[in-house]
Amino acid sequence: MIPLTDELKSDLQKVAFAAADAARDVTLSYFRSQTLEAENKDADGFDPVTRADREAELAMRAVIQQARPDDGILGEELPTVTGRSGLIWVLDPIDGTRGFISGTPTWGTLISVATIGGPIFGIIDQPFIKERFIGGFGTAEVRGPHGTHPLRTRASRSLEAVTLLSTFPEIGTKTEYRAFRALSERVRLTRYGMDCYGYALLAAGQVDLVVEAGLKAYDIQAPISVIQAAGGIVSNWQGGAAYSGGQVIAAANADVHAVALSILQDALND
Amino acid sequence: MIPLTDELKSDLQKVAFAAADAARDVTLSYFRSQTLEAENKDADGFDPVTRADREAELAMRAVIQQARPDDGILGEELPTVTGRSGLIWVLDPIDGTRGFISGTPTWGTLISVATIGGPIFGIIDQPFIKERFIGGFGTAEVRGPHGTHPLRTRASRSLEAVTLLSTFPEIGTKTEYRAFRALSERVRLTRYGMDCYGYALLAAGQVDLVVEAGLKAYDIQAPISVIQAAGGIVSNWQGGAAYSGGQVIAAANADVHAVALSILQDALND
Repeated sequence: MIPLTDELKSDLQKVAFAAADAARDVTLSYFRSQTLEAENKDADGFDPVTRADREAELAMRAVIQQARPDDGILGEELPTVTGRSGLIWVLDPIDGTRGFISGTPTWGTLISVATIGGPIFGIIDQPFIKERFIGGFGTAEVRGPHGTHPLRTRASRSLEAVTLLSTFPEIGTKTEYRAFRALSERVRLTRYGMDCYGYALLAAGQVDLVVEAGLKAYDIQAPISVIQAAGGIVSNWQGGAAYSGGQVIAAANADVHAVALSILQDALND
Repeated sequence: MIPLTDELKSDLQKVAFAAADAARDVTLSYFRSQTLEAENKDADGFDPVTRADREAELAMRAVIQQARPDDGILGEELPTVTGRSGLIWVLDPIDGTRGFISGTPTWGTLISVATIGGPIFGIIDQPFIKERFIGGFGTAEVRGPHGTHPLRTRASRSLEAVTLLSTFPEIGTKTEYRAFRALSERVRLTRYGMDCYGYALLAAGQVDLVVEAGLKAYDIQAPISVIQAAGGIVSNWQGGAAYSGGQVIAAANADVHAVALSILQDALND
């Protein structure tokens, strides 16, 4: 167990902000550029990787390794660095690459700090809007062009009044799709296309649920930190820890989490 | 036929910007507020109308009626004003009300000026990001926190490389849904959830197609002006004028428009 002194927390926050700043410079230099080329990562799937993605991760790693040489780093684009401090940085330079190549301001840079027990601090950064959603170490706030505001998730409301977000209507496997549809049919409004910005909106009290599948650890650890700091709950579709990725349900409060989880599970067991 | 002198064009632009500024103040005072309440407009459908919507239209009408008392006004929220100048202002104070109540920066204020022949100038304004997409009278540009940039739609590319946007995966009727799916299955990437911001991204050269159905005149007239000024094409699904609303296909260029239109029509006639 690492003793999380105030000094250490303050240092980790400072390094996280510096890494986010470094990534911003890179991503914005590519965003909406006409020459941006996306490659296919998988032969059968569509997962564009851009130079922006790689260069932004390199920029973040440079900041982190300079300031905290003993920490580990797990990133989307480059090999894992095994640290010896017990702390690991989990990085997704551009979460929402498809949004990025479509020009939508919904992608983000995800940065979190984790121990073996999961994330303890995280940032969802949207460089184009210049909004930074911060959660952990006693902080839950968004900083941006409209000022600094506390993040607080929504109070409980009936399922018929709930807004649900997910990035793609296809969700994942056919089974996952059916379970998602069972939930979607019960809520007031389902919206798509928000990438990681959906988790930020949940933390900001704007929506009630974000449900996704097929996530990686680096897609969800920063959102977990931000949402939990704002009063929300994130789990997998079995109700367990979500920080390894996979199926994720993020909820504004315990009530909506319990109701939505039970609908997903009923549909999965059908 | 109204003689569109340079003086008149300049006046209309100035009034349009002033109306957009007035709407911004109203919409931003409500956006992401916790107390925002949405009413249902129709007994059977879900179409929230907020006080923000009404007050923003009132603010725009005040600006327009003060500066141009002889022009007509067609707006989403209030009765039509019959003018006598031959010019009509077409206003949608908050296009994308569902995005608005979900906190997404995808809704916008749509302002256009039309003659009997359709729109001649338009603005898509995104108040939260502070981006204003402007098209008509020789102008095609976006002004915002990242500076002023010309708007130019994408060059022609094969359908397999195309990005398609629409706001809801359900699109409209079952027939419309099937036609949309036939097109969606042929393109590289389909994304949802962008509201009117999708048309702005098309004008900005970020995507190739936006296809929607069930639109009103005030949903599409400003996008038509902006997209046409940027080099794109907007029609209905029969290839005719789209300024009355209904089924809309907006394309980056004539090639992708022709190919996509033919797929929609084949599916509709199937």
